[in-house]
Amino acid sequence: MREEGDGMTARPINPGAETHIGVRHAVPHIGAITLRDYCGTDAAISRAARVSYGRENADRGADADAKLIGFLVRHGHTSPLEMAELVFQVEAPIFVARQWLRHRTASVNERSLRYTEPTADAEIMPAAGLGDLCADPDPGASKQGRGGPVPVAGFARVMVRDAFHRTAHAYRGLRERGVSREQARSVLPLATMTAFVWKVDLHNLLHFLRLRCAPDAQRETRLLAEQVAAVVADAFPLTWSAWTEHVRDAPHLSASAWRALAGCLDPDALAGALGALPERERRETMSLITAAWAAKGGA
Amino acid sequence: MREEGDGMTARPINPGAETHIGVRHAVPHIGAITLRDYCGTDAAISRAARVSYGRENADRGADADAKLIGFLVRHGHTSPLEMAELVFQVEAPIFVARQWLRHRTASVNERSLRYTEPTADAEIMPAAGLGDLCADPDPGASKQGRGGPVPVAGFARVMVRDAFHRTAHAYRGLRERGVSREQARSVLPLATMTAFVWKVDLHNLLHFLRLRCAPDAQRETRLLAEQVAAVVADAFPLTWSAWTEHVRDAPHLSASAWRALAGCLDPDALAGALGALPERERRETMSLITAAWAAKGGA
Amino acid sequence: MREEGDGMTARPINPGAETHIGVRHAVPHIGAITLRDYCGTDAAISRAARVSYGRENADRGADADAKLIGFLVRHGHTSPLEMAELVFQVEAPIFVARQWLRHRTASVNERSLRYTEPTADAEIMPAAGLGDLCADPDPGASKQGRGGPVPVAGFARVMVRDAFHRTAHAYRGLRERGVSREQARSVLPLATMTAFVWKVDLHNLLHFLRLRCAPDAQRETRLLAEQVAAVVADAFPLTWSAWTEHVRDAPHLSASAWRALAGCLDPDALAGALGALPERERRETMSLITAAWAAKGGA
Amino acid sequence: MREEGDGMTARPINPGAETHIGVRHAVPHIGAITLRDYCGTDAAISRAARVSYGRENADRGADADAKLIGFLVRHGHTSPLEMAELVFQVEAPIFVARQWLRHRTASVNERSLRYTEPTADAEIMPAAGLGDLCADPDPGASKQGRGGPVPVAGFARVMVRDAFHRTAHAYRGLRERGVSREQARSVLPLATMTAFVWKVDLHNLLHFLRLRCAPDAQRETRLLAEQVAAVVADAFPLTWSAWTEHVRDAPHLSASAWRALAGCLDPDALAGALGALPERERRETMSLITAAWAAKGGA
Repeated sequence: MREEGDGMTARPINPGAETHIGVRHAVPHIGAITLRDYCGTDAAISRAARVSYGRENADRGADADAKLIGFLVRHGHTSPLEMAELVFQVEAPIFVARQWLRHRTASVNERSLRYTEPTADAEIMPAAGLGDLCADPDPGASKQGRGGPVPVAGFARVMVRDAFHRTAHAYRGLRERGVSREQARSVLPLATMTAFVWKVDLHNLLHFLRLRCAPDAQRETRLLAEQVAAVVADAFPLTWSAWTEHVRDAPHLSASAWRALAGCLDPDALAGALGALPERERRETMSLITAAWAAKGGA
Repeated sequence: MREEGDGMTARPINPGAETHIGVRHAVPHIGAITLRDYCGTDAAISRAARVSYGRENADRGADADAKLIGFLVRHGHTSPLEMAELVFQVEAPIFVARQWLRHRTASVNERSLRYTEPTADAEIMPAAGLGDLCADPDPGASKQGRGGPVPVAGFARVMVRDAFHRTAHAYRGLRERGVSREQARSVLPLATMTAFVWKVDLHNLLHFLRLRCAPDAQRETRLLAEQVAAVVADAFPLTWSAWTEHVRDAPHLSASAWRALAGCLDPDALAGALGALPERERRETMSLITAAWAAKGGA
Repeated sequence: MREEGDGMTARPINPGAETHIGVRHAVPHIGAITLRDYCGTDAAISRAARVSYGRENADRGADADAKLIGFLVRHGHTSPLEMAELVFQVEAPIFVARQWLRHRTASVNERSLRYTEPTADAEIMPAAGLGDLCADPDPGASKQGRGGPVPVAGFARVMVRDAFHRTAHAYRGLRERGVSREQARSVLPLATMTAFVWKVDLHNLLHFLRLRCAPDAQRETRLLAEQVAAVVADAFPLTWSAWTEHVRDAPHLSASAWRALAGCLDPDALAGALGALPERERRETMSLITAAWAAKGGA
Repeated sequence: MREEGDGMTARPINPGAETHIGVRHAVPHIGAITLRDYCGTDAAISRAARVSYGRENADRGADADAKLIGFLVRHGHTSPLEMAELVFQVEAPIFVARQWLRHRTASVNERSLRYTEPTADAEIMPAAGLGDLCADPDPGASKQGRGGPVPVAGFARVMVRDAFHRTAHAYRGLRERGVSREQARSVLPLATMTAFVWKVDLHNLLHFLRLRCAPDAQRETRLLAEQVAAVVADAFPLTWSAWTEHVRDAPHLSASAWRALAGCLDPDALAGALGALPERERRETMSLITAAWAAKGGA
């Protein structure tokens, strides 16, 4: 049975996704992601949404699709986004995989240290170089690793490398004495590399990206998530554009903050400022403003 | 085994929820909801969130809980909200149940027309009075039932009642001729009453309420959902308050709309206007504003 | 963007699934299913399972895949089966769709009677012919529709047709008087046709088939589910074969029944009888027998 | 707001569960589990199942409940089991938590090494004593840790202890040099302790127990899972009894194995042997046998 390589299919084809199939996107010292399979396209998402209206067979063109997808994403009607699916191979240290797999709405098959064992230093000690170590920007705060790379004295690296060597030594010692892999693994560090197949629909993938590409996400996870994001941006350009506009880059304002800000808006400037928005969104935004003014006035 | 009525428990107790246990909240001509069981409180949600920080045993008091829950809801850290669970008995017509059960992250046991049959006109024709019929506000648009109650000529009610009578007649005729319940039910109208146990965690329940209490939700579903909302507001006052402030009543602005609006803000008025916000939210809101100004200036 | 028709892809290709893409499999008087898209193959399932062992790149051939998939299905290691996904268009009456969509682990977009309205008698009254009506085999029991088709007097059909005509009449009457679609639909019968896109992974699809192809499933749902089953059997022959052998056609015996039966086994006949089983399964089956004998002897 | 300690509730009370609330069940050198909250009882499960029949208000007594729950579990009608929910606090090493949290249908809040840091050797090196190390029963096979405890030379323990000390040293060294917690943690071993709140419904909990209490499960995970199992057995005695009888201890036989075994059954012994089974199960078991004989005869 033919499995890999170019072949004919009767399925919808996603040109942006096709260019990534089988291409390994690596992040030095951390890991890599590779798109293995997918189903769905921006057009398929639009078509699924049009089923609600009984118009799934209408061919509306990319402009109508863009408008519809913008509407879906803006109003949180995300079920059509579940109609696209992506399958990635992910290589990452265990402490990154732990965060990744906390996202429950995905299918996963992961390498097990019950059935395999790290054979090379490269696997036991992937982070021996440790990439870029980041200092706490504010050691007293709970915020993590956002200070950007800072020089860590060579002595620290030596300590880490030494700890990893002892760890590898202990692992092998236990194995040689007949201790099972599943128990011996307990001495391995959280930096040990793992690999997993990760199959996820586009709605849940975008939720993952919102959390894991955020500035306060762990740096190692974020760098891999950004590789995933680049694939998504190529494969689903209309959905990506709607999502960055209406979710990723949208401001989170509370009801109180919004009422306060609405009171600072210059009414005379609004018409001009909002003129560039799509008609429907302009109307909805004006409604929000007048509602806030009314609430304010009433208060 | 003792099952109902007041008894002693070592579990956390939710005073607001207790007052609703076993109380049937009915909506005339549509249905009813009854809280049967629950677990969790606002304090339990806070405690679950503090597990991340290894401080789950600290007793911080309601003020600290309110602040923490506000932070969780504002930043979309919703997993602690899954720690509360509610079990409702719901009675509703099938066309409402269809929307309700489209929400997949819940546990459900529903009455089956394979095993029961409507025995009284009240069950086959619950909507014979049909409650308030709502005209299309704009017959050409896809918007539904938002015109508020309007008089529907008595003749229309007569037609509906007649259709229901024929339907009931056909159902009984098929049953008398030995046709199975599961097939005979196909003639029953979507207005036929059903009942189900619905167990859902608070995170998914709030998502349900956001969609089903919205102004554009189906009126019949919305009226029942508002009864559910009233129970939630009593049982989880801190979470409810955070959710209305940061989700339900928060404005949905796109990145473009926000940049446009930021340009209309009067800088001199801001400090005063935002002064009433909690310190951390005030700071984050100012960051959003200056980022929008910078993006604007850079463009 | 190219969407339909044959094209080149770098993805794994499933020859059995390809032959079904876009082919509408209809069941007269009930509905139809059409495969729209898929990802995955038997080989991809095996490969995902081999990730656990770090051997996902080994090409083992169909025999090794069959053996591995048999092992996975027999031992309930179902996560690799989630790696295949199928997207169907389903057309069915609402009472069938209600059962279908009770399966929660799937993605769905369904036609809405809030946005569309049945325009032809064929849509309002799909079951006017009512296909084959089935009598209760045992009118006193709760078992349903298993008596096979039986003649239902023409008079019953006339009643049903009359009820549907009145229903359609009432629906149109309400609409003409300006009642919204979402309210007017409440008079429509459960036999009204609906349509939905249904995306589901192979593990959850097989669970659906186990329940909905069972002899006690509702006849109308079963006939459509059997069309889905035929597609799955063509697309995933190894998984299908393992599943029928180890799940669908496997006996459900309790621990007590098994101990009782083991006591009735003729020890001399066993070796010959089990000789045809695969070596590993033969060994595991013998272990079950000797364990039951030991439990029996011990009691 | 009252949170802990005995108080009055109008909810159904589960006497078996109440005795475990707040009781920490520890496994030396490995971890502990503590029941924090619950909802549901065997009777509530039965009542939910009776909703299908419209008989949820009937009080049937424990015998009828036992019979109904046996039927549900035997036939895989598991949705009523979702109506019970349990909330545990779990303390375990990370390599155990990784397996535990692979079960996706649960709600989880876990301690994060981004926000906390191990302060005592006891936390960094919980397994320094390493409990019982288990040798591979068959070093060439993939089977793990099933040889029972075996003596591991004191030298191996010294190596492990040394590796843990170096690890702890490296962690502290990195922290002192200002490296963030989220990066420094990468040197910590998989044996590092973690803690999490785990909320799961009874259906998914039993699925967890089936896999994690199995003889081939990892020993450390199994020992903790058995503590969970003991709580479930006390809290849901009817469901537990049905599940051990129809799932945990039931034989997994393929269709082929069953046909082969049926041919070895002594027909004269059957009636006596099956006499002790409940009537309905006896009938269903005889049907399986005669069907296998017929298939055999036909082949």
